[in-house]
Amino acid sequence: MFDVIKGDLEELEKELLSAVDSPVEIVREIGTHLVMAGGKRIRPALCLLAAHGGVGFELRRVLPLAAALELIHTASLVHDDVIDEAGTRRGVPTANAKWGNQISILSGDYIFAQAFQLVAMQDYGNYVYHRLAELVGNLSAGEIIQNRQVYMASRDIEDYFRRIQKKTADFLEISCELGGVVSGMDGERTKQLAEYGHCIGMAFQITDDLLDIEQTEEKLGKPAGNDIRQGIVTLPVIRALNESPDGEELEVIVTDPEMTEEMAARAISIVRASDGVSFAKDRADEYLDRARKVLPEGLPEAVREALLMVADFIGERDF
Amino acid sequence: MFDVIKGDLEELEKELLSAVDSPVEIVREIGTHLVMAGGKRIRPALCLLAAHGGVGFELRRVLPLAAALELIHTASLVHDDVIDEAGTRRGVPTANAKWGNQISILSGDYIFAQAFQLVAMQDYGNYVYHRLAELVGNLSAGEIIQNRQVYMASRDIEDYFRRIQKKTADFLEISCELGGVVSGMDGERTKQLAEYGHCIGMAFQITDDLLDIEQTEEKLGKPAGNDIRQGIVTLPVIRALNESPDGEELEVIVTDPEMTEEMAARAISIVRASDGVSFAKDRADEYLDRARKVLPEGLPEAVREALLMVADFIGERDF
Repeated sequence: MFDVIKGDLEELEKELLSAVDSPVEIVREIGTHLVMAGGKRIRPALCLLAAHGGVGFELRRVLPLAAALELIHTASLVHDDVIDEAGTRRGVPTANAKWGNQISILSGDYIFAQAFQLVAMQDYGNYVYHRLAELVGNLSAGEIIQNRQVYMASRDIEDYFRRIQKKTADFLEISCELGGVVSGMDGERTKQLAEYGHCIGMAFQITDDLLDIEQTEEKLGKPAGNDIRQGIVTLPVIRALNESPDGEELEVIVTDPEMTEEMAARAISIVRASDGVSFAKDRADEYLDRARKVLPEGLPEAVREALLMVADFIGERDF
Repeated sequence: MFDVIKGDLEELEKELLSAVDSPVEIVREIGTHLVMAGGKRIRPALCLLAAHGGVGFELRRVLPLAAALELIHTASLVHDDVIDEAGTRRGVPTANAKWGNQISILSGDYIFAQAFQLVAMQDYGNYVYHRLAELVGNLSAGEIIQNRQVYMASRDIEDYFRRIQKKTADFLEISCELGGVVSGMDGERTKQLAEYGHCIGMAFQITDDLLDIEQTEEKLGKPAGNDIRQGIVTLPVIRALNESPDGEELEVIVTDPEMTEEMAARAISIVRASDGVSFAKDRADEYLDRARKVLPEGLPEAVREALLMVADFIGERDF
């Protein structure tokens, strides 16, 4: 999909491994495991694509930033997995399952620090440091808010959109924006790319939340209905709460911290029987349309195509 | 004790509170609790004192750095308390006791981010960012190593010194160094102040570890013998392992993860009966002597006196 940055992404893997290298064996072992457990590298990919659109693109210059974005994401997943007591992620044992909570908390901190270290060694200027620190602050604050609202079943769709913005869309927005910033893109185009990132991020998280309703444990690499069990209501669930004839029953289930497996299964079947899934897909598609439309003029054709393909990819996503 | 920076430290409290301010009530509430739970502010105090020795001292310039140092310390204590399952610190309920582990992990991340945010908004240059990111990385890596070595009862004193260097001495060294750097102190004096900070830090941690052996729960604000119970051997324990006639019995206890309260009490009494306490006090005194001697020439007299008083203070410490 990403031919134009295929070589860049290979370099990225090296950059990531070298960032978590350490003379201390256990630190290197954990860091390597976490980096290799491998995500989709969506944040660095967006950052690199955006950077290719700048007049001053240089791989060596943007690579530490791209790696820092992925490391921040990795660190926050490590802490999320401790918080969620998750045993696997993408089918691979989590750090907490492998090494325990203590080591995982510390490893997350270590990886955050390595991200800031990578960036500190470049000459990106204060704005980049500021945006990254703000990002980490907002990610944590967003999770704190989410944790305080579990089992509350807010029916407010705007609440949900604010939540996923803090959790995902801001991150993808910043990835695009800073890629443009460090490679000399002009302010107007950088702003348009940032909006593209925001829209992609909103669609990405809506789709991700949908998978938790639609898919099997085997395919997800973690149990389905995980959000519901944790008292987190996502877009299809909110829609079903508002529109399903079984909305009241659904509310009783998703506000019950003592929810059994049977109750969770019943909640999923109520949501699946409602128009919640198609409603959420439509919202995701709207964001993807906006993402396609807001792409700035004058991007290199291969970059433009790749960014359009990212939008298609998220729309068809079942991974 | 700190007359020369008394006003600065009052400003620091405002800076700290404003750094953890947030439009989100729960985030502000937790941040304020953590900042107010109040430490001794030793890191910002050293940073401010060092800064007063620079030719370009300006309170507004150094204050965000001083606050960032205290926030990094606070964040790492929040994560430590989750890891240690501590219920109180300095007699005040810990964040994990008050809000649970989930919120505490996220709050620690949030406070780390606010520290980097404060620094990102200044024009300190890359070296300062680099040193702070390195500090957080080393703090976490140091804790990971310590966590892997519990209940192993290493008898190697050099191991212990390396451990407390990563945990405390590097932090106090950086506090002094960066205070000098941001206020235009020359390289030679900055280096001497950094060494002063290193020595103060070594003495501080040796003394802190001693308190865990010497003092009562009431005075400590946490249970005595905490380190022993967690399988962490400190200097007086290592000395007793090597020299006490009951060294073998002590080793059996401190390597047993199933240690009972009675066993821990017996271990403390073996250490108290040995020369471990006086041995550790002598090492702390040696570091304090070196700290006094390495102070650079030409510091303002009030700053020099305050730095000497810090050394006296740590030597007499029973808090």
